[in-house]
Amino acid sequence: MTQAYTITYTFADGAVIQAPAQPGRTVLQAAWAARIALDAPCAGNGTCGKCKVRLRSGETVGERGRLLSQAEREEGWMLACASRPASDLVVSVPAAAFKYKSGLRITDLRAGREKEAFDGFRRTLVSLGYQPDSGISLRELAVSPPAAETPTADRERLLEALAAAGLSPARLSLPALRGLPLVLREAAGRLWAVVRTELTGAVTVLALSTGRPVVCGLAVDIGTTSVSALLADLETGEPLAAGSAANAQIRYGADVINRIIESTRPDGLSGLRSALINECLTPLIGDICAACGVEPAQIYRVAAAGNTAMTHLLAGVWAGYIRLEPYVPAFFQLGELRGAETGLPVAADAEVATAPCIGSYVGGDITAGVFAALLGRPRGCSLFIDLGTNGEIVLGGSDFLLACACSAGPAFEGGEIGCGMRAANGAIEAVSLDPVSLTPALTVIGPAGTRPAGICGSGLIDLVAALFAAGAINAKGRFAREDGRIRRDAAGLGSYVLAWGPETEDGRDLEISEADLDNFIRAKGAVFAAVRCLLAVADCAVTDLQAVYIAGGIGGGINIAGAVSVGMLPDLPLAIFSYLGNTSLLGAYAMLISDRAERDVRELSGGMTYLELSAHPGYMDEFVAACFLPHTDGSFFGGL
Amino acid sequence: MTQAYTITYTFADGAVIQAPAQPGRTVLQAAWAARIALDAPCAGNGTCGKCKVRLRSGETVGERGRLLSQAEREEGWMLACASRPASDLVVSVPAAAFKYKSGLRITDLRAGREKEAFDGFRRTLVSLGYQPDSGISLRELAVSPPAAETPTADRERLLEALAAAGLSPARLSLPALRGLPLVLREAAGRLWAVVRTELTGAVTVLALSTGRPVVCGLAVDIGTTSVSALLADLETGEPLAAGSAANAQIRYGADVINRIIESTRPDGLSGLRSALINECLTPLIGDICAACGVEPAQIYRVAAAGNTAMTHLLAGVWAGYIRLEPYVPAFFQLGELRGAETGLPVAADAEVATAPCIGSYVGGDITAGVFAALLGRPRGCSLFIDLGTNGEIVLGGSDFLLACACSAGPAFEGGEIGCGMRAANGAIEAVSLDPVSLTPALTVIGPAGTRPAGICGSGLIDLVAALFAAGAINAKGRFAREDGRIRRDAAGLGSYVLAWGPETEDGRDLEISEADLDNFIRAKGAVFAAVRCLLAVADCAVTDLQAVYIAGGIGGGINIAGAVSVGMLPDLPLAIFSYLGNTSLLGAYAMLISDRAERDVRELSGGMTYLELSAHPGYMDEFVAACFLPHTDGSFFGGL
Repeated sequence: MTQAYTITYTFADGAVIQAPAQPGRTVLQAAWAARIALDAPCAGNGTCGKCKVRLRSGETVGERGRLLSQAEREEGWMLACASRPASDLVVSVPAAAFKYKSGLRITDLRAGREKEAFDGFRRTLVSLGYQPDSGISLRELAVSPPAAETPTADRERLLEALAAAGLSPARLSLPALRGLPLVLREAAGRLWAVVRTELTGAVTVLALSTGRPVVCGLAVDIGTTSVSALLADLETGEPLAAGSAANAQIRYGADVINRIIESTRPDGLSGLRSALINECLTPLIGDICAACGVEPAQIYRVAAAGNTAMTHLLAGVWAGYIRLEPYVPAFFQLGELRGAETGLPVAADAEVATAPCIGSYVGGDITAGVFAALLGRPRGCSLFIDLGTNGEIVLGGSDFLLACACSAGPAFEGGEIGCGMRAANGAIEAVSLDPVSLTPALTVIGPAGTRPAGICGSGLIDLVAALFAAGAINAKGRFAREDGRIRRDAAGLGSYVLAWGPETEDGRDLEISEADLDNFIRAKGAVFAAVRCLLAVADCAVTDLQAVYIAGGIGGGINIAGAVSVGMLPDLPLAIFSYLGNTSLLGAYAMLISDRAERDVRELSGGMTYLELSAHPGYMDEFVAACFLPHTDGSFFGGL
Repeated sequence: MTQAYTITYTFADGAVIQAPAQPGRTVLQAAWAARIALDAPCAGNGTCGKCKVRLRSGETVGERGRLLSQAEREEGWMLACASRPASDLVVSVPAAAFKYKSGLRITDLRAGREKEAFDGFRRTLVSLGYQPDSGISLRELAVSPPAAETPTADRERLLEALAAAGLSPARLSLPALRGLPLVLREAAGRLWAVVRTELTGAVTVLALSTGRPVVCGLAVDIGTTSVSALLADLETGEPLAAGSAANAQIRYGADVINRIIESTRPDGLSGLRSALINECLTPLIGDICAACGVEPAQIYRVAAAGNTAMTHLLAGVWAGYIRLEPYVPAFFQLGELRGAETGLPVAADAEVATAPCIGSYVGGDITAGVFAALLGRPRGCSLFIDLGTNGEIVLGGSDFLLACACSAGPAFEGGEIGCGMRAANGAIEAVSLDPVSLTPALTVIGPAGTRPAGICGSGLIDLVAALFAAGAINAKGRFAREDGRIRRDAAGLGSYVLAWGPETEDGRDLEISEADLDNFIRAKGAVFAAVRCLLAVADCAVTDLQAVYIAGGIGGGINIAGAVSVGMLPDLPLAIFSYLGNTSLLGAYAMLISDRAERDVRELSGGMTYLELSAHPGYMDEFVAACFLPHTDGSFFGGL
């Protein structure tokens, strides 16, 4: 019988964690069991190469050198997921092993550039009649003191005061009731009540306090890769702070399919739900609230938008049938939940509304996103493209909405790209190249002086477009020359060095290989093929498009010209393209602050038609044809 | 600095538990910290004498011999609450130290004598129009299969099936939604839904299953000393099983005042709530459900009745003001709770209704109890006396209801009586005496051959009445002679030996002392004085009373003649007295199975007037006059 070995993990910052490795477990599994959040977007299947660690002492078995260069193997690098200890081990874990998922970022939205950008969306909402009206309001009340002659209980005296203020019939949430006796006496009968008025007129008292509280709401976008949240004042609609973090489910796989498979294993569903709620949303909400000096329990309403699988996992609902024919999810609309049943650290009685899904692969992020994107814009035929971990595309306007998902994969969020990462600190978000020397100029997310740690979606589009424009890569995504920054490994795989080791965060070269280019080309090809199919089904010409809206957390924006030049977006005048950022979060914000917006998102989703591309006869041909730079049919792209 | 010692607790069954005693902690506190449930009805104040343990080795400091006889002190007995270790200790814990709180008892109500007794109450309910109608019902549904052409989600197809069955608008509880995909496919579209229909007509699906489930509800009586629960089939109203257990809060004190004081200490409220929910109700519900082969999650509705303090502690609501002038509780009506927010192991979305309170010391046990007691009975002027840990008394009928609480103390439930215990296995529930030799004949609760371990309320009334009738005690409760079973200790305190050591469960004599008689006389005097005050306030003569209903968990019944002879109950024809048992549980059962009964209990409580005896001018004089056997005014009791 194999014995358990001890693995000593050492980190760049000097930290050391010792963990036992049960017999048969990999170095990656032992790290996870010890709560070391080593990245593995491929769920430990040995295909992504993100879990590289360096063996300092000890013996391992397994295909530890898979996906590694000769030089890396010689230096002791190995895939943690493909290595099992055959003795006690010491391994060092590079900072890059956390890059894909790290980078919680909080933004104060009460001032500055982000506030201004957001205020434009708020003004549009108000101009269209979506004033702040969430049904939740603040009331000041005067409650009579306890009296010996008629010793009416505190709750019943509060109900009298509510009735006198026109708030009846009313019920108290349990947290409000629990605090009532102390608040009443501290406040000498004058107090503030946070109340929710239902459509029926019935009133629920959510909280009571002696001082005037801030009444907060939270909009959440639950992406497969990243989770973003925005805290707003429900009375005014004013955004207070926002933040984003990696979806902690990433250790179960980068894409929804791996997550769904994991969710059907024993304890899988509860593990995925816990990763999302406890490891990701709870600390994110805590940090956002701390940034504005409020408590998470002051969040009285939540509006969340996520794809169909994420919405199932958020609620802990069986998601297994999403990936099985005929691809029928457990729900389109989740119905309203209460804070306590979600496990979120918000008010126990907070309403948690989720944006409706319309199919197994077109979810609430898209219905909320289309609502936000089409707000007050011309209602001709528009195209909405969400470049998330999968690409979802919607065609239409006020007359019809036709939606589909294309399995673009996670390339736009940094997945399946050797040095890919999501748009967090250290990510290269823009690249330009000297067309002759191919010397790059990099824009890196983060404070001045931040060294590059990887590349995110917008940087990747820039890079491929520039390499292609310079003739450094050919239509098949192969390097056309070999000099300077372009090199070839022993197996003949070409790569371009974006940054040399001394310039990067962890001292290793950042490079894009032909394998990465293959993944990018498949991703962009999937998007373009899906656009072509939607246009064909709707019987529209590409020239009918009046607007193309690009959404997604791919970086600081998107180089539209570059994306057109590599054949990802249709070749149309640049003026009709807009990059809107995280439309899922914008739509969730609209649902949060306005009951009417929430109803309109639900109505919009009812009118969307879902096209299952995998069942669509022309899709595969379109995809194969689009897997070239820019396309096999050069006539689509200025006759290139 | 004092160091921590180790205390080794040994038990009669051979078990041994070692626990550290932090400096300054008593032997009792160290036991509690080690989760040994040593009894201390006085909350460790050194006044009840229930926490006696025997020191086998080691040294202690403190007044360890308080309340003990010379013989006990010589044998090494000590009060755990008054002894602190001065070295490592070995103490043996007698079985009696658990008697006051032990004795969880489950009764199958589907057959037998208990069923018949209960069926009488059910027939009366139905005859008065309280048919089973809790709003919760079972529906069989046919849901269309998932289809590739129109891949409507599971929830939305279920909603269609519900609408086709006239159940609309409907929402799914989260547990129902979570199980939906698997149930639907296992059942091939035919399934059973447990649905709750609100008064508005809206429908909530509480659970789904492939087979026909039992739809259960739970009635609960939360007493200060004992907790009782009854499981019923909500469709038919049929009782399935019942059980009772000690209220695990007893370690914080036998009476509500000590519990309320504890609840205002740091973590006190959560500790008391946890003792009730986790240590008492959860195992009780588990055992009751196991007896009928159902799961606690099949309980879809709960109706609970408890005194005002218990209802606050059940919900975790601040109870501190109950005991402070002007004695105003946090609520009269708790409002409806959901199972999940109570922490009970029932369906997450189960309604938990609680009987309304009308004052700090007249709670839901009394409003539910009066509803049950006055059901279908003549509506003249009746008296309702609940002999719980405190006595509560209600006078009236269909015209008026006047209620008060008298601080009778816990004597009727075995508290403050040296060998007192609640009506559980081993309790002497009836006593008769040979008037000359004073040799007792004892009736003991439990299987044949059960040895007596203590005495409960009904036994105590029997015993005092018999001793008084035989002239063995005088009007002041002092022993009038000294021979045979009557003895006097060195301090001159007289006592009567009910059972000699060889006959008892733990080998020690069971005796009633003059201190116990004092406590009993104060308890019975408080009841009688309260009755006199109520009659005076209502301007009724005692002869106006058409019925006297006695309720409470005092044992197998009450010896009415005996209770009259000692001056506890008014001297009226025996035919007008009825012993009804646990009316709080009966009332909760009525509320459980019938929405109309629930409404009527709330309406009844609205019409009850609360009389605060402590503020009533004549009460103290009445009480002092009643603290004799039978009374200072002999004319009240046949001119004795």
